Amino acid sequence: MANYRLVVAYDGAGFHGFQRQPGLETVQGSIESALAHLFSEEIKTTGAGRTDAGVHALGQVVSFRSASSKDPADVQRRLNGMCGPAIAVLESSEAPEGFDARFSAEARTYEFAILNREVLDPFSRHTTWHHPGELDTTLMGKAAQALLGEHSFESFGRVEEGKSPMRRIESIDIEQDADLITIRITANSFLQQMVRSIVGTLVKVGEGDIHPDDMDKILHARDRSAAGPVAPPHGLFLVSVSYPEEFV
Amino acid sequence: MANYRLVVAYDGAGFHGFQRQPGLETVQGSIESALAHLFSEEIKTTGAGRTDAGVHALGQVVSFRSASSKDPADVQRRLNGMCGPAIAVLESSEAPEGFDARFSAEARTYEFAILNREVLDPFSRHTTWHHPGELDTTLMGKAAQALLGEHSFESFGRVEEGKSPMRRIESIDIEQDADLITIRITANSFLQQMVRSIVGTLVKVGEGDIHPDDMDKILHARDRSAAGPVAPPHGLFLVSVSYPEEFV
Repeated sequence: MANYRLVVAYDGAGFHGFQRQPGLETVQGSIESALAHLFSEEIKTTGAGRTDAGVHALGQVVSFRSASSKDPADVQRRLNGMCGPAIAVLESSEAPEGFDARFSAEARTYEFAILNREVLDPFSRHTTWHHPGELDTTLMGKAAQALLGEHSFESFGRVEEGKSPMRRIESIDIEQDADLITIRITANSFLQQMVRSIVGTLVKVGEGDIHPDDMDKILHARDRSAAGPVAPPHGLFLVSVSYPEEFV
Repeated sequence: MANYRLVVAYDGAGFHGFQRQPGLETVQGSIESALAHLFSEEIKTTGAGRTDAGVHALGQVVSFRSASSKDPADVQRRLNGMCGPAIAVLESSEAPEGFDARFSAEARTYEFAILNREVLDPFSRHTTWHHPGELDTTLMGKAAQALLGEHSFESFGRVEEGKSPMRRIESIDIEQDADLITIRITANSFLQQMVRSIVGTLVKVGEGDIHPDDMDKILHARDRSAAGPVAPPHGLFLVSVSYPEEFV
């Protein structure tokens, strides 16, 4: 068996999320259809992050195994020819035997982009959340500190039945470059909607509706109604995934 | 009569060009509909550049006159509320009596963006021309020199019946930043399709199909079949328009 690893970018706008779903256009579904055609066998892939409908990726990692050994550069070229312009396979390589894009991952980094100005920008309207009102990024940065480290994140995301709500956030950085605010979060993994729920809550802090000192209380409420609203998906990007040294 | 000046950005993808056309969605048509609603009178606008279908603008200038005097900031806000997210009014001001966005303009600057790498980028696929093959930008820059100054540009654009084919190109700059090549052209004005036709020809030079020394011959042929193909509209942006000092 050969093991393959792809790094994939996609514009999430036209997809019902990453994960394959019968009868719906998904990123994983598109890639698997193309792979089935290319390898003449059914191929099951795993992705490092199961991004929701409308969420984008700059560096999603996908792995799959096949009985046949093919040139990874050829796999990349053929996939890019078949998957359509909303998906781009940026890298393709053979992976070590035990590598799995999802289970081998040590950490995921997501970025959320907010366009913070009065007038919308026609060219970034599909890739940023347009928020015209003032946002105090210093307060947002202060509030974010409460989330660092290992916690139960039930206040900020959906927990799958029987799964742990514990996640470890390694860093949250809030950068402002002119009218673009970028919130970058790295964690071992994320609950569903967790980044967007954190962003929605931090924006409430930036607007002055939530005091930074209240983040601790929101976190420990372990109740989604304690947090702010879920930010829209089109500002969110899965940027990169990191793996232990043996897989790099 | 009050005279108004707007600076407008738009994503040209969904429009049949700038210029109003009965029954078709155009940028000028959308702005005029909104203005008619806002001023409760029919408003005719003029635009500095009549961009073709699919061409974008970062700084189109639009002027119009009205019997009623309104706060320009309010006009901007209301237009942005009415025109939809593909059009953004970036600036709005009262203009001096004689100002006309089209006829007062001294020069227009257009930029054409080429993504020069093997793999398409899902996020710039609507705003760059994806050209995977190698391009020699030094040769392209050399070829561009032949076009500087005042010439008849019949080889590079449509000449309206009874109108002059003479145009004066003030500068052509070709910049490469990683895999993004930007061709920036400033001229007093442009024939229809002139920028895209120049870009298509320069790309042929960059591919090695046309020798830079042949640009002079192509220019003086005054025949469109002498030039290269017309580059696609979605890589082209009207960036800015300049006016004489009395209107700045």
